[in-house]
Amino acid sequence: MTMSPSIPTDSVGVVLPENLHFEEPLKLDCGVVLDEYDLIFETYGTLNEQRSNAVLICHALSGDHHAAGYSAADDVKPGWWDNCIGPGKPIDTNIYYVVSSNNLGGCAGSTGPLTINPATDTPYGPDFPIVTVRDWVESQARLADRLGIERWAAVMGGSLGGMQALQWAIDYPDRIAHAIVIAATPKLSTQNIAFNEVARQAIRYDTSFHDGHYRDHGVVPERGLMLARMLGHITYLSDDGLHAKFGRELRDGKFNFGYDVEFQIESYLRHQGLSFVGRFDANSYLLMTKSLDYFDPAARFDNDLTKTLSNCSAQFLVISFTSDWRFAPAKSRELVRALLDANKDVSYANIDSEQGHDSFLLEIPAYHAVLRSYFDRIHRESGK
Amino acid sequence: MTMSPSIPTDSVGVVLPENLHFEEPLKLDCGVVLDEYDLIFETYGTLNEQRSNAVLICHALSGDHHAAGYSAADDVKPGWWDNCIGPGKPIDTNIYYVVSSNNLGGCAGSTGPLTINPATDTPYGPDFPIVTVRDWVESQARLADRLGIERWAAVMGGSLGGMQALQWAIDYPDRIAHAIVIAATPKLSTQNIAFNEVARQAIRYDTSFHDGHYRDHGVVPERGLMLARMLGHITYLSDDGLHAKFGRELRDGKFNFGYDVEFQIESYLRHQGLSFVGRFDANSYLLMTKSLDYFDPAARFDNDLTKTLSNCSAQFLVISFTSDWRFAPAKSRELVRALLDANKDVSYANIDSEQGHDSFLLEIPAYHAVLRSYFDRIHRESGK
Repeated sequence: MTMSPSIPTDSVGVVLPENLHFEEPLKLDCGVVLDEYDLIFETYGTLNEQRSNAVLICHALSGDHHAAGYSAADDVKPGWWDNCIGPGKPIDTNIYYVVSSNNLGGCAGSTGPLTINPATDTPYGPDFPIVTVRDWVESQARLADRLGIERWAAVMGGSLGGMQALQWAIDYPDRIAHAIVIAATPKLSTQNIAFNEVARQAIRYDTSFHDGHYRDHGVVPERGLMLARMLGHITYLSDDGLHAKFGRELRDGKFNFGYDVEFQIESYLRHQGLSFVGRFDANSYLLMTKSLDYFDPAARFDNDLTKTLSNCSAQFLVISFTSDWRFAPAKSRELVRALLDANKDVSYANIDSEQGHDSFLLEIPAYHAVLRSYFDRIHRESGK
Repeated sequence: MTMSPSIPTDSVGVVLPENLHFEEPLKLDCGVVLDEYDLIFETYGTLNEQRSNAVLICHALSGDHHAAGYSAADDVKPGWWDNCIGPGKPIDTNIYYVVSSNNLGGCAGSTGPLTINPATDTPYGPDFPIVTVRDWVESQARLADRLGIERWAAVMGGSLGGMQALQWAIDYPDRIAHAIVIAATPKLSTQNIAFNEVARQAIRYDTSFHDGHYRDHGVVPERGLMLARMLGHITYLSDDGLHAKFGRELRDGKFNFGYDVEFQIESYLRHQGLSFVGRFDANSYLLMTKSLDYFDPAARFDNDLTKTLSNCSAQFLVISFTSDWRFAPAKSRELVRALLDANKDVSYANIDSEQGHDSFLLEIPAYHAVLRSYFDRIHRESGK
């Protein structure tokens, strides 16, 4: 880690990702065995002697391992959760050793559709198997082994990341002291699956998709991926939040009676869609939405969430946001209720926010105060 | 009108549409002048001698003039609002003369993108101008003239149809006794515009779209139109409604770890999308979504809805549905509040329903009871 003059002092600074190769075959939920794979990750802070201060950050649908700091001294944009992770920040890197890894099946460095399949010497592309939240947890457990972390002080994440934190608490009760589940749900609603299905079809219908072999044709299904992202963005924000930000504002101040951008919201969506195409792989996007749809840990426990959680020994912090309609507060409360029924230690905060599902990424004072105070508690307890 | 043995006795029976040609040029909001045009419509019931019992039904985005009865004796499916219109039904055709016309720009018979443009002798296609709710009201007023209807007992509709009823009350205060505005809004929210924009882009990005000249290429942008409809369907229903109907039910009872239909909701959406492609024109769909976006009658009155309504002399019935998140009850209440502020006669009902925006099409007892009782009142008052 080096610091450049332009980088804020409460930043973890310039961080280079690390890569680990795993040769122990990993049997996935779908039945496919990955004979070998790589995981790319970043770390912030220092692992203490007792190895008791490690925090695992799990990313959401389109996130990656670059959660905090800068990739280079002249980098203008820090990692996606930089407001939360750093010296003196809610997840204080003066205290905690933070590990942030890229999920298998992603497109940012860990093994996924863009990786060369050793069996064929060509990229996996659409043949990369659909991985589940359980698979990710298993791969992260092996990463923990390699990093010498027997037990996480906390595993945390928002949205799909929160599902991983929950799955950790279920699958590895002895290896996680605290599970921090933010803007997540114990399973997707029908409406959520429906939105994912439209996003998938948008990609798969794109004539450039070529059954997922688009790179062999020198193209990417950019229109489909754009549509998927535009739709996603609407559901990550709230109606009120969109209204506050864009209202019915017109780009040219008048109607043009045509199909170019007229309302500012249209311009915003197109911009978000376009910029996503440049940074995300369509096959990865498809399989990540499937991981979301499939997540339902209670399905293995007679659809009884309380029973599902009965073996957990982690303490829980659950956070939802009032205007999040994609993963609504009611879903978080369903989890909280089951945890209480299972006699687990759970703290819950429903944060007042107009920003919808995206709130979990934002520096909302009440939200960060909850995180800060909870991490203070973890620190105090670990010191006992 | 003839009756076949298989047609229920409370049906208006077999109804054939009528067509009228208009030669007085119509100057549209966009500035384009339609030199001539046709309107297709159906009527149910009989116009009384005083011509005081006429009700105009305005259709929504994908509706048409075939609101009630059957197109042929062996037709299995009646019109889209058949549960509401007929002898003894809430809009009782023993009492009222009901007129249901197809909007300009549609694809069911009135002049629109599929019509031959007399200036070029080829179909308008994408050159058909974007029409607005005001344009529709103007064209409907001319239809009323031709039918000898000086003043409607009521103008009514749901969704985009409700917007037309509202615009009627504003534009023709002397020609409408009652405006029945159901599941509508005085203007679209940012989120609504955003959903419409994604639907439009899905169509326009389809490689078969050819800038709207798809029929010249012997194709239709079916994938785009399918996506638009799938997305629309999600927003017409509520999360709870979808959950009650489909939950997380799997078609094959297990995950297949692939991209064919797995969840029943996926099957439903694909079916809805496919069946829409066969019955709707993409250029019509595009311009109808624009009419929705543009609707904002208060924009001409300093964005003051109360002022906008001050010249209305109609009495109003406003209806919303508790689970309608596309045109939420709060939007209906905004209209009701402005009507009260403008000292207008308004009745308002927020109907408890799990079916979302689609509720306005359904036979919900409390909803139909409100309509029935309101139409009884119209009848009593007209008899004075």
